[in-house]
Amino acid sequence: MEFSSKLLEKAVNEMAQLPGIGKRTALRLVLHLLKQPKEQSEQLAAALLTMRHEIKFCKSCHNISDTDVCEICANPSRDTSVICVVEDIRDVMALENTGIFKGLYHVLGGKISPIDGIGPNQLNIVSLVDKVKSGTVKEVIFALSSTMEGDTTNFYIYKQIKDYNVMTSAIARGIAIGDELEYADEVTLGRSLMQRIPFENSLNK
Amino acid sequence: MEFSSKLLEKAVNEMAQLPGIGKRTALRLVLHLLKQPKEQSEQLAAALLTMRHEIKFCKSCHNISDTDVCEICANPSRDTSVICVVEDIRDVMALENTGIFKGLYHVLGGKISPIDGIGPNQLNIVSLVDKVKSGTVKEVIFALSSTMEGDTTNFYIYKQIKDYNVMTSAIARGIAIGDELEYADEVTLGRSLMQRIPFENSLNK
Repeated sequence: MEFSSKLLEKAVNEMAQLPGIGKRTALRLVLHLLKQPKEQSEQLAAALLTMRHEIKFCKSCHNISDTDVCEICANPSRDTSVICVVEDIRDVMALENTGIFKGLYHVLGGKISPIDGIGPNQLNIVSLVDKVKSGTVKEVIFALSSTMEGDTTNFYIYKQIKDYNVMTSAIARGIAIGDELEYADEVTLGRSLMQRIPFENSLNK
Repeated sequence: MEFSSKLLEKAVNEMAQLPGIGKRTALRLVLHLLKQPKEQSEQLAAALLTMRHEIKFCKSCHNISDTDVCEICANPSRDTSVICVVEDIRDVMALENTGIFKGLYHVLGGKISPIDGIGPNQLNIVSLVDKVKSGTVKEVIFALSSTMEGDTTNFYIYKQIKDYNVMTSAIARGIAIGDELEYADEVTLGRSLMQRIPFENSLNK
């Protein structure tokens, strides 16, 4: 791509470093900013800088937070004896949206993935194990994505905490509510059959 | 979407103002920046700000430029008597990539589109007509997209310059080279038939 302006080229190249944004998309976004009032670019730049420099991660659960301890961990009505282990903060947002879970979270920051160079030490695992060791935790719920990496990570953590007096569980996998059986993939359908539950338990209460 | 951090929310909302970027994508982009070194966010913000504040539009053709007159207009080997009228600078980039055109461009900055509130006065039309009036232009080539708005804009400009001693032309529309006839849309195919050219002229030289 030949640019008539170095400034434009620089902006496009920086924008194109974001995941899923190619050069053409970056050019479209940058040209859009050029057509908008200067304030929009200024506000975008300021918001990104402020966020990058001032955002904190909760000291307890590693969720993104504006304070040292996040709102969920600081909420006295949450059950501190149940910890739901998730990959990243988007999972916390998704689970919070259900309004079902009243325990605390623990954000790992990723999954063990040797191919991507991510080992256990890059993830927030030690602090989770320490929480379990402290004896206040009754149940750890694994809610990682059900991929090879997710399973590996679950198992790695499980091995480290199983000897302490703690219950471990995994969120249920199965056919999504409202989905047709015929369109479900075989692995999900097979698992959903093997891990069937008593009918009375399947009724919405 | 419920955010655990106001700083994060602000960054996502600013990012989501870009065209084609929804809240989910914005969140993904912003979380990516959080995982990268601070320098990446700083460079992105700086590049956007510098571009927005310092970029210039060529005084002659309105192409984006770092100087008062763009490289194309300032190039003494370009033919100043032929002007190709385009919608925006991406069209200039596309045409320059062909390496075929040796004249100058005139970037309108859009098309006449009453629905979007864009009238002739929002576009760089007066400066084009002035160039034609000055008598140095022999040919004006219309290269807008062939939509209702493009045709309207072409015709609006045509009416204003036709009485001056200038040739007007439009880029050829037809079946793209390498495309199968059976997959071409009827309008394109019909036009391509009506606007057929002598066979000798169709051979690559």
